[in-house]
Amino acid sequence: MEAVYHVRGDARSIEERARAIAIEQSVEMPVAAIDDEFVRAQIVGRVDTIAEKSDGLFEVRIRLAGETVGQDPGQLINMLFGNTSLHPDVALHDVELPGELVVPFGGPRHGLQALRQRVGAPRRALTCSALKPQGLPAAKLAELARRFAQGGIDYIKDDHGLADQAYAPFAARVEAIAAALREVGHATRYVPSLSGDLDAMRTQIKRARDAGIDTVMAAPMIAGLANFHRLVREHSDMAFFAHPTLAGTAIAPPLLFGKLFRMLGADAVIFPNHGGRFGYSPETCRRLAATALADWHGLRACVPVPAGGMSRDRVPEMLDFYGVDIMLLIGGALLEAGAQLVEATSTFVTEVQSYKHG
Amino acid sequence: MEAVYHVRGDARSIEERARAIAIEQSVEMPVAAIDDEFVRAQIVGRVDTIAEKSDGLFEVRIRLAGETVGQDPGQLINMLFGNTSLHPDVALHDVELPGELVVPFGGPRHGLQALRQRVGAPRRALTCSALKPQGLPAAKLAELARRFAQGGIDYIKDDHGLADQAYAPFAARVEAIAAALREVGHATRYVPSLSGDLDAMRTQIKRARDAGIDTVMAAPMIAGLANFHRLVREHSDMAFFAHPTLAGTAIAPPLLFGKLFRMLGADAVIFPNHGGRFGYSPETCRRLAATALADWHGLRACVPVPAGGMSRDRVPEMLDFYGVDIMLLIGGALLEAGAQLVEATSTFVTEVQSYKHG
Repeated sequence: MEAVYHVRGDARSIEERARAIAIEQSVEMPVAAIDDEFVRAQIVGRVDTIAEKSDGLFEVRIRLAGETVGQDPGQLINMLFGNTSLHPDVALHDVELPGELVVPFGGPRHGLQALRQRVGAPRRALTCSALKPQGLPAAKLAELARRFAQGGIDYIKDDHGLADQAYAPFAARVEAIAAALREVGHATRYVPSLSGDLDAMRTQIKRARDAGIDTVMAAPMIAGLANFHRLVREHSDMAFFAHPTLAGTAIAPPLLFGKLFRMLGADAVIFPNHGGRFGYSPETCRRLAATALADWHGLRACVPVPAGGMSRDRVPEMLDFYGVDIMLLIGGALLEAGAQLVEATSTFVTEVQSYKHG
Repeated sequence: MEAVYHVRGDARSIEERARAIAIEQSVEMPVAAIDDEFVRAQIVGRVDTIAEKSDGLFEVRIRLAGETVGQDPGQLINMLFGNTSLHPDVALHDVELPGELVVPFGGPRHGLQALRQRVGAPRRALTCSALKPQGLPAAKLAELARRFAQGGIDYIKDDHGLADQAYAPFAARVEAIAAALREVGHATRYVPSLSGDLDAMRTQIKRARDAGIDTVMAAPMIAGLANFHRLVREHSDMAFFAHPTLAGTAIAPPLLFGKLFRMLGADAVIFPNHGGRFGYSPETCRRLAATALADWHGLRACVPVPAGGMSRDRVPEMLDFYGVDIMLLIGGALLEAGAQLVEATSTFVTEVQSYKHG
C-alpha cells in the first residue's frame, strides 16, 4: 500500500523527515540495527516520491507493507498514521490500497441503491433530519419523529449526542420512536445512534431490530475502526450511517470518510458541508462525495450526507453542487420551525423531490 | 464538568466562537428553538470564562452537563470534543471532572506501587524496552526478550506495530516469549500488545494469562475508550499499559494520558519524551507525569513512561527531570547494541538502579 502524507517543512530537511516517517510507520527503529533480510526487504517503509505542493508544504508518498495490517482495521490506521499523528506538521492525505486488502472488508452491505429502495425513492436525492436536543425525554423525541415523518422525510437520525442517558435511555427511546413511526405509516426510517463498548452496541442493535429498525448510526473514531467493522460484519441486515465525531483534522476527510469508513462498511457518511458550522472547503466536500460514490474495487456506493448547519434555502445549490446521489440532512434549521415542523419538513421534502438539475 | 479549550481567533469574535462551542458540545441546535425547561437550564453548555493567553490564543472554559455522559467513556470524549475536533482552531486543553464521574471508572487497578512490587523494585525508577522490528518471527522476538531479561530489565513491551500478523501471530509470539522469560527466571515482565476488536483483545488477554502473563498493552484511541475501559473492568488481574498511537495533537497530553487514560484504568502511560523523535515540550512532559501521579479522587498513581527515541546517555538527565516515580523505556537504542544487547541492557539497568538524585 502507498500512504500519502502532507508535511510542512523546508526543502533542506524534507528528505530526512520523509525517511523518518517511513521508519516510524513501519519498523520504528534504526534500520542499520536490523539484520533480518525479510524485514529489511519487505517491512521497512520506503519513501517513493517527494513533491513540493506549495511553499513549505510537501507531498510525501511512502510504501508500507500490507503484511503489517492483516485484516485488522485498527492495525491499518495504526500503520498508516498511529505515531505520526502525534506530529503537528504531518497530515495523512490519502492511501492507495490494493484490492486484496480492500475487498475482504466488503464495503457497504447496502449502499446508495438500497437506502433509496427502502424509502421508495429510486432516483432522487434522499432527505434526513435529526432528533435533538439531547435532554428531551423519549416521548418528546418520539413526537418530533412523528412530525418529521408526517412531513414525509426519508431518514430521521438521532443527534450523535443521544446515547444511553437517564433522561432518554436507548431502549425506551427506540421503542417510543419506532411506535410513533409505525402509526404514521410512511416508509420513513429511524436511525438510532449507538454508543458504549462493542457489547453495548450489539445489545442496542438487537433492541433496534426487535423494534423493526433496519438502520443504525455509529461513530467509528469513538467506537474504534475494528469494532465498527465488527458490527457491520455481524449485522448484515442493518444499514450503517457513520458519524464524523472525533475525526479531528489530521486525516483528509475524503480518505477517512469516503474511502476508509466506506471500505469498513458505512452505507452513508455524514460530514460537515462547506459553508456551515465547520471549515471544510467546497473542494474537500466535492472530493469526499466523489470518493464515497466512485467505482472502487467493486464496493457498493456509499451515500454522502453533507450536514452541519444546513438550511432549506441551500437545497437547490447543494443539489447543483453534488447532484442527486446524496442525502441532504437538515437538523436544527427544521426544528426552528417549532409548531410548524410538519410544514417545514414537507417544504424541504417537496423541494428535493421536485428538483430538476438547472 | 468544566471543559477548557484553547481557541485561536481574534478578540472581536471570541465570545461568539465560545458560545458556538458550548452549543456544539451540548444541544447542537439553536437555543432559541428549545422550549424544554430542563434542557435550557441543565443541558445547554455555558461559557464560564474567556481569557486571552497570548496574542490570538484564548482559554475558554465551558460548563457541560455530566448527565450527558452517564458512565460511558466514549460518550465522555464525544461530549468533550467530538464535533469540535473537526475544527482546526480549537484544542481540548483540560477538563475538571467531578468525583462522582471519576470514581466509578476506578482508575488503575494496580498502578505504580504494584508495578514496582511485581519486579521487586520498591523505590527506584523502573526500566523497560521494546521488542521490534515487526516482521521478525516469534522465535527471534523471543530471543531478544531473553537477552533483555538476562540484562535484568523490568518490563519488555511489544512494539505497538506488533499485532496478529502472519509472520509472528499473537498466540505463537506470546508463548515463545513467555517460555524464554521463564527460562531466564528473573522477575522480568513481558507486555504483549493487544489489537483487533474487543473480542479479539479478550481472546488475546486469555492467551496471555494462560502463558502466565500479568501485564498487557493497549492503544485506547484505536480500541475506543469504552472498549479499553471494558477490558480493564473485565480483567482486574491484568495491569494495562496505554500506548499513545493515534492520539493526535488536539487533546492536551497531560489531560488525555495523565487524566483520562488513568481514570479509565491505565496502570502506565507511554508518551513521547521531550527531545526525542516527537515535539512534546519539557513543560508538557512535566505536567503529564505530574498529572498521572497526582492525588486525584483517590485513584492509584499511574506510571509515566517517557519514550520515543530515548538513549542510555539521557538516563541521569531524565531521572533528574522526572524523579524516580517513572518507568524509563529505551527501545531502538538498546537494540542497536546487536550482539552486545545483554551488556547494553545491563548497563542501562545498573545506571537506573544506582541513580542517586544529584
